[in-house]
Amino acid sequence: MTSKPQPAVTLDDMRQLLQQLPGPDLESGTAAVLRQDRLTKPRGALGRLEELAAWLATWQGRHPPELRRPRVAVFAGNHGIAAHGVSAYPAAVTAQMVANFAAGGAAVNQLCQVADADLRVFELDLERPTADFTVGPAMAEEDCARAMAYGMMAVESGIQLLCLGEMGIGNTTVAAALCCALFGGSAGHWVGPGTGVDQDGIRRKVAVVEAGLAANAKAPGDALETLRRLGGYEFSAIIGAILAARMAKVPVVLDGYVCTAAAAVLFKMDPRALDHCLVAHCSAEPAHQRLLTVLRKEPLFDFGMRLGEASGAALAIPILKAAAACHSGMATFDQAGVSEKSE
Amino acid sequence: MTSKPQPAVTLDDMRQLLQQLPGPDLESGTAAVLRQDRLTKPRGALGRLEELAAWLATWQGRHPPELRRPRVAVFAGNHGIAAHGVSAYPAAVTAQMVANFAAGGAAVNQLCQVADADLRVFELDLERPTADFTVGPAMAEEDCARAMAYGMMAVESGIQLLCLGEMGIGNTTVAAALCCALFGGSAGHWVGPGTGVDQDGIRRKVAVVEAGLAANAKAPGDALETLRRLGGYEFSAIIGAILAARMAKVPVVLDGYVCTAAAAVLFKMDPRALDHCLVAHCSAEPAHQRLLTVLRKEPLFDFGMRLGEASGAALAIPILKAAAACHSGMATFDQAGVSEKSE
Repeated sequence: MTSKPQPAVTLDDMRQLLQQLPGPDLESGTAAVLRQDRLTKPRGALGRLEELAAWLATWQGRHPPELRRPRVAVFAGNHGIAAHGVSAYPAAVTAQMVANFAAGGAAVNQLCQVADADLRVFELDLERPTADFTVGPAMAEEDCARAMAYGMMAVESGIQLLCLGEMGIGNTTVAAALCCALFGGSAGHWVGPGTGVDQDGIRRKVAVVEAGLAANAKAPGDALETLRRLGGYEFSAIIGAILAARMAKVPVVLDGYVCTAAAAVLFKMDPRALDHCLVAHCSAEPAHQRLLTVLRKEPLFDFGMRLGEASGAALAIPILKAAAACHSGMATFDQAGVSEKSE
Repeated sequence: MTSKPQPAVTLDDMRQLLQQLPGPDLESGTAAVLRQDRLTKPRGALGRLEELAAWLATWQGRHPPELRRPRVAVFAGNHGIAAHGVSAYPAAVTAQMVANFAAGGAAVNQLCQVADADLRVFELDLERPTADFTVGPAMAEEDCARAMAYGMMAVESGIQLLCLGEMGIGNTTVAAALCCALFGGSAGHWVGPGTGVDQDGIRRKVAVVEAGLAANAKAPGDALETLRRLGGYEFSAIIGAILAARMAKVPVVLDGYVCTAAAAVLFKMDPRALDHCLVAHCSAEPAHQRLLTVLRKEPLFDFGMRLGEASGAALAIPILKAAAACHSGMATFDQAGVSEKSE
């Protein structure tokens, strides 16, 4: 985020965009469901793979769906509240991990290689963390909107799936503050060990979330205003990417707690805004499952992962490729000369 | 299974083999665990992927583990009890689906392509089904042992993972009979809808299992004798493949209910015999979860699949590749210059 995109966008532009989200392509989705029942397998025997193929068709707006060009986008940001000791790692690790992504040494690099996916890492002013939200809003409106616009750039013509993730020391505390403000409940309900803090660390996280709510919650406003006050740059960028993907007919895969908490801002604005989004996995961070329940999203798998950096989302790509490949490549009963179920 | 392997094997040969199973390579497994903790991620943050990397190292007997050459083996057999109307499909579908595998039109073909895996399909005398076990043993001892030896041929030098599956109209009823004889409980406890039979079909399946137990259960003998009386050729072949893989240091991925029921014969002979086996998924066939509880196996994922033909096992390959790739390809904290957790 080194230069301002032209023309500069505002949060009101984003509010307008939310009024114009395209709906599902029911024609493509129906075509997928009809084909599914002609393929050489008992009806429904591929279980969730069949749902995934129909979901891809519905939100790509094409049948059969295709998955030759998946992209993984990781947004990195720094947080003023990191100074309160809410992470097991120093804030410098955000930039160090971005360097590790560039050098190919992180988990997400290996996962993208296995999935044959394009990896893009977006740095959001790492030298300039958000303001400490325990004393006021985390972001100026202009900076929040600019980060959203920057996130929109992750969507380019031709990509067929967008997996989203993040890197940012302190950002599970930010996620907890957002969830608490958006959906209520105590701070402790939304706080967890993150990268691995101990009980003292969890108490510090709870105190920071409570202070953030006290400093910001009285202000009127919608979920985007909550984002501005309690969120962060990578959260804003993820939201922008989700919106841009919807406009461009690109289905989205969300990663763990932080990524889903960003998406939750859009859900609060309009529950239909996440219909083109799949949650890859259930994170080991306990609040993730709570948030998924609120969002009514069923994750694909649960491997006890809690790394972020789009690692869970990237791992979903081969599963989605499998769903698309079965859907497109399998023979029908007629084509294969296989006898059908006796009724 | 067109020619007898030389020299012909007996079930006693298999019993002897079971006495000689190699144990885990703890040196390779320990090396994996130690490396895991140096990689650029919070300790344990890759969750089950870390366990999988250590499991691969332990049973490949090498560190780091490798997964460039995975194989998927599907065994097809026919069953005398199919004549009792225990499936939603006619018995001819077994051979028709084998032709579909050869033509590349089945689900497993697409899944192997996505996983870049080698697919081998083994037919076991499809023109000569096993005997109807409601009136006596399903197999002669010689045929049972021959099918096991045939299954052993699925393991060749150089393969680094073996995914097992099956095709055989009627074989969920065979699986239920085996589980019932091996682990007790009512026939209804182990019978389910399979390819999609209705309540009448389930009643027929229960009756066939009960008749099979009545005709065979009184005979003395071990689990291999139970296999001979109530099993089938593809079950025997899967057992042979599991044993051969253990001898050759090839980790095994099991598919759904039928495949796991075959493996359960070995578990009954020696619970350690399945230590090199991972169960890919929990099938939608309700008895699969019951069987997994008995075998103390935690499946990797649950997508509500119930297709067989190694489809679930093949879908696990990209996940295992991801585990191996993260383990081998990630930088350590020192290599990447990333700060470690503050203690």
